[in-house]
Amino acid sequence: MTRPQPSPRAEFPHFRPVQLRWNDNDPYGHMNNAVHYQLFDSAVNDWLIDNGMLQPDLTGVAYMVAATGCDYFAELAYPERIELGMGITRLGSTSVTYRLGLFRAGTDRSAATGRFTHVHVDRNTRRPQTIPDAHRDRFATLLIAAE
Amino acid sequence: MTRPQPSPRAEFPHFRPVQLRWNDNDPYGHMNNAVHYQLFDSAVNDWLIDNGMLQPDLTGVAYMVAATGCDYFAELAYPERIELGMGITRLGSTSVTYRLGLFRAGTDRSAATGRFTHVHVDRNTRRPQTIPDAHRDRFATLLIAAE
Amino acid sequence: MTRPQPSPRAEFPHFRPVQLRWNDNDPYGHMNNAVHYQLFDSAVNDWLIDNGMLQPDLTGVAYMVAATGCDYFAELAYPERIELGMGITRLGSTSVTYRLGLFRAGTDRSAATGRFTHVHVDRNTRRPQTIPDAHRDRFATLLIAAE
Amino acid sequence: MTRPQPSPRAEFPHFRPVQLRWNDNDPYGHMNNAVHYQLFDSAVNDWLIDNGMLQPDLTGVAYMVAATGCDYFAELAYPERIELGMGITRLGSTSVTYRLGLFRAGTDRSAATGRFTHVHVDRNTRRPQTIPDAHRDRFATLLIAAE
Repeated sequence: MTRPQPSPRAEFPHFRPVQLRWNDNDPYGHMNNAVHYQLFDSAVNDWLIDNGMLQPDLTGVAYMVAATGCDYFAELAYPERIELGMGITRLGSTSVTYRLGLFRAGTDRSAATGRFTHVHVDRNTRRPQTIPDAHRDRFATLLIAAE
Repeated sequence: MTRPQPSPRAEFPHFRPVQLRWNDNDPYGHMNNAVHYQLFDSAVNDWLIDNGMLQPDLTGVAYMVAATGCDYFAELAYPERIELGMGITRLGSTSVTYRLGLFRAGTDRSAATGRFTHVHVDRNTRRPQTIPDAHRDRFATLLIAAE
Repeated sequence: MTRPQPSPRAEFPHFRPVQLRWNDNDPYGHMNNAVHYQLFDSAVNDWLIDNGMLQPDLTGVAYMVAATGCDYFAELAYPERIELGMGITRLGSTSVTYRLGLFRAGTDRSAATGRFTHVHVDRNTRRPQTIPDAHRDRFATLLIAAE
Repeated sequence: MTRPQPSPRAEFPHFRPVQLRWNDNDPYGHMNNAVHYQLFDSAVNDWLIDNGMLQPDLTGVAYMVAATGCDYFAELAYPERIELGMGITRLGSTSVTYRLGLFRAGTDRSAATGRFTHVHVDRNTRRPQTIPDAHRDRFATLLIAAE
C-alpha cells in the first residue's frame, strides 16, 4: 500500500468556500475528523441542488451514501478559511464517486482528501436505479482521473 | 407573559452570513433547534476573534457561556441562505448578553431570535473577572435596547 | 431578575442516562453549550416515542419546538457519566413546556437546567392543534411546579 | 476491487452500546453518514480512556486520526438500539488501525463497517512517536485478522 499524499488544487475542477463553526473544533483544538464528512456531504448535495439534480424537499430522486473515506494530512481549525475542491473519479451506471479536498485558503496542498460514493436510488424502495442521462451529462463535467 | 415576537432587521447593528449544512436539517426537514445555538456561538466567537478579543488558540482571556435561549418563529432549512444579526442588550461588569436574530435572506422578520450570555473568566480558575476597558469599548459599539 | 439556581434531583419525576461523545467537547475541554439542546431534544423525543406519542417515522402528529433555554451552572465534559432529569412545568391546550436538568452522575445539583416548549402541530399545515386527551394524560404524569 | 461485505459479530472482540440522538437523523430519516464517524471516534477514545491510555484532560500522550473510512450496508436510525463492535487490524510502530462495526441490536451483520487509523503523537510537536510497550500490550488484546 502506497502512503496517501496531499492533492494539489489543480486536481479539482470545482471549488466551494466552507464556513467552519466554533464547535467543529474538538479538545485537540482542531477540526474533529467527523466534521470533514459533514463538509463533504454538504458540498456534494449543494452541487446536486445547484444543478437541479436533487430537490431540497427530497421529492423525486435520491442519492444515498454507500462508502466514504478520508486521509488527514494536516490539521484544520476554526476560524481558518477553508476551500473545498471537488471532482468525480468514477461514474458508474447507478453510482458516482467523488474526490474531495479541503484546503486552507491560500495553500496548494490538501489538508485532507476524501472519497464519497453516492448511489442513485428510488426514494421509496431505496433500491439502486440507473442514473438518468441528464444527470450523467452534468456529472461528466467534473470527471477527473481516478486514484 | 407576553408572547415573543420576531425581530426586525433594524434591531441589529451587525450582520454575518451563515452557511448551513445538509445534516443541520433533521427528520422534519428543517434546521434542528440545537443548530441555532451552534450558529449563535460561532457568530459571537467570530466577532470576538475579528476584534482581537479572543485568541483562537485560547490563550489569555476566555468567555464562557452562562445562559442561552431561543424563540423559534419560522422554520429554517438547508440549503436556504441565512443571515445572522447581532447586538448586545446588556453589558455588565463581568458578563455580556447578546441578542441574535436568524433571517432567511431577503426577509425582514427574524425566523428565530436568541439570547446568549457570556461571562469573562480567568482561563485557569474559570472564575468571573472584570471585563477590560478595551473590550468594553468594543462591546459598546453593538449596544441596543434591552428586551 | 433573580439569578437562576441549580435544580435538585428531587425536582424531576423522570430520569434518563445520557451518553456523551468525544466531539461534544469543544476547545475549552467541556461540553459545548449547543450539545445541551441535542440532549434535551433527544430526551423529550425518546419519552414521547416510549409512550407511543410520537412515531419515529414521523407519520401522524408532530411536536415542534417553539422556545428553548438553558442556564449553565457547572461544566460537563465527555467522558463523564450524565443523567438527565425531566418534568413538565406547563401543559397548555396546544403546547407543553418541559424543565430538564443535566446532572453529573452522583451529584444532586444540576450542572445545567433547561426549558423546552413543544407545540402540537398538524404534520402538513404545521398549524397548532389541541393536544389529544390521551397525550394530556401522559403529560400529566410528569407535571411539576412551574418556575 | 471486490465489493465490501457486512461483517459478522464474531469478527469483533469488543462491543459497546451506542446511544443515538434525534438530530443524528437527517432529512432521509436515517442516521447521517458523518455520525458514524462520531461514534467510531468516541468508541475508540472511550476504550483508550477506560484502559488508562488517554487522559480525558489530554495531558501526556495523544492519538490523532490519520485516516478513516466507512462502508454503509443498511440504514440505521434513531431511536434504534445500536451496538458497536471493535477490533484492531494493524498495530504498527507509531500507528494503530481499528475495524469498527455498527449493528442494529439483535442482528448479526454490520449495518456499517469502518476503518480508523490513529497515530501516536507528541502532544506538542504532533510528530509521530513509538507506541509504548504498555499500550502495545493492551492493543494486542483486540487484534483481529486484517482485511
